[in-house]
Amino acid sequence: MNAIVFDQKLRFVTDYADPVPGEGEVLVAVRLAGICATDLEITRGYMGFRGVPGHEFVGTVIKGPRAWRDKRVVAEINCVCGQCDMCLRGLSSHCRHRSVVGIQGRDGAFADMLVVPERNLHEVPEAVSDEQAVFIEPLAAAYQVIRQCPIERRMRVAVIGSGRLGLLVAQVIKTCGCQLQVIGRNPLTLEFCEKKGIQGTPVSELVPRGDRDVVVECSGSPEGFDLAVRLLRPRGTLVLKSTYAGDAPLNLAPVVVNEILVLGSRCGPFPEAIQALARREVDVESMISRRLPLSKGVEAFELAADSRNIKVLLKPG
Amino acid sequence: MNAIVFDQKLRFVTDYADPVPGEGEVLVAVRLAGICATDLEITRGYMGFRGVPGHEFVGTVIKGPRAWRDKRVVAEINCVCGQCDMCLRGLSSHCRHRSVVGIQGRDGAFADMLVVPERNLHEVPEAVSDEQAVFIEPLAAAYQVIRQCPIERRMRVAVIGSGRLGLLVAQVIKTCGCQLQVIGRNPLTLEFCEKKGIQGTPVSELVPRGDRDVVVECSGSPEGFDLAVRLLRPRGTLVLKSTYAGDAPLNLAPVVVNEILVLGSRCGPFPEAIQALARREVDVESMISRRLPLSKGVEAFELAADSRNIKVLLKPG
Repeated sequence: MNAIVFDQKLRFVTDYADPVPGEGEVLVAVRLAGICATDLEITRGYMGFRGVPGHEFVGTVIKGPRAWRDKRVVAEINCVCGQCDMCLRGLSSHCRHRSVVGIQGRDGAFADMLVVPERNLHEVPEAVSDEQAVFIEPLAAAYQVIRQCPIERRMRVAVIGSGRLGLLVAQVIKTCGCQLQVIGRNPLTLEFCEKKGIQGTPVSELVPRGDRDVVVECSGSPEGFDLAVRLLRPRGTLVLKSTYAGDAPLNLAPVVVNEILVLGSRCGPFPEAIQALARREVDVESMISRRLPLSKGVEAFELAADSRNIKVLLKPG
Repeated sequence: MNAIVFDQKLRFVTDYADPVPGEGEVLVAVRLAGICATDLEITRGYMGFRGVPGHEFVGTVIKGPRAWRDKRVVAEINCVCGQCDMCLRGLSSHCRHRSVVGIQGRDGAFADMLVVPERNLHEVPEAVSDEQAVFIEPLAAAYQVIRQCPIERRMRVAVIGSGRLGLLVAQVIKTCGCQLQVIGRNPLTLEFCEKKGIQGTPVSELVPRGDRDVVVECSGSPEGFDLAVRLLRPRGTLVLKSTYAGDAPLNLAPVVVNEILVLGSRCGPFPEAIQALARREVDVESMISRRLPLSKGVEAFELAADSRNIKVLLKPG
């Protein structure tokens, strides 16, 4: 089959072995896939991943139990054992023996087909288009923020980073009715915020006053962490949403002195994301900058790294 | 009066101006004071402090309202305005305009006398000796850990750092009845743990398995942070208790991936600490390695930095 493969470098191949579903797994034909920051980090060495990246996708089940056949689906990305201490605790997204679609030990969606566990599937309702559905995984990650850190109307909240993830997180937080500001470097995406009724502030114009109740770090840069700490009031909450490869110089003393609560936050609940898209509470379609065929995947990665593009999608076939 | 003064370097002086209490303040004659890691950090530039350090002390009120006169007291170290947003929120230890005894904008206790706000005073009950009372401030900081992060019997907890603060935190956590391990480098203090019925493990013998529910970082070193993250289970809690001057290279990706909760933790409740000492639930006297007169304060700082000593006390007069 056709696939984008990363193995020290990224390339498009036409002779990748067709995936074969194992027990409890289904074969999915990819309809559409999205490139996110984690994919770009993978090409810089994150997680030491080798294989087919891609974990944001919508597809059609072509092999599997009859109940799922021909269904339009998305899939949670953590493939879990169901038996370790974390799974038994109800924290299966932290399964000790997990593989993660397109990120860790398992091929992903930048291909004609991929295999996922049946238990990971969610059917996509008719009200949600393919171009919306490809955002379900990252939107679920955005919903994880308000699940871990409930946001009240009276709160002052800032999102650092106006990239793909920041824009999703901001739209989700906006539904809480709080005072919200997105801080970024990209005029294009800050303008997107303003269009959505969210204050967008260039980082260069910002004067941190230590008065935010909650700051969500979505920039994926060490400077974002330092800025977050300066924005927060004492006893405020910093939600760390983005990862980056390698060490960075950080000063944790303000976290101690101001008794900041730092919450690491990763994958989130698919049902909330699906519902929000079906009800059109979150606009993802305006975030799509480019649509490319899978064969142009290497170019698509370059486009996704260019700040003039927000979301870049890949379509097989 | 006599005082230890830090101004680029540390020195003992005999002609420091006597402090004069302002409105709402009392004058306290220092009976005994303790040197802690923050004092050592101050001599390395932490907080840019200049003046008389020292914030762990017991003394006698010699000038102030009649009700307090001649009373044996300890004092909370945050001197607050009572009017800013933090004070009005009930978070006065985070007062926007605070000074901190011997740490920030206010002289401390390594002197014959010091001035503190009356509202900061706690009377020391007869059942608590001077040598116990000098530990009330750091012991309160240790109690802050279990106030912010309640520890249940079924939990697995590790304390990183077997220094002064680590030993206090460990003794407080032990009262919760959980499974507890102190990880350190110093055979002397690890032996202290074992004597108290707490497992003490040299860091060199440790194999982190990602199975601790709570880790308290008391080592004040960047390596301590990395070790803490490797010890914790996914969704575990890391309590950051110690500060250090400057930046250090840190990798926050595991905090995000494992959705670790990081809690900065600083000053704590004095009443709990006083009660624990009165009931002899925590042994602080065995932690005292050296007692020196104030005039030997510079030498005392050197002794406090030497791992062969646990707590070094200074006595004026």
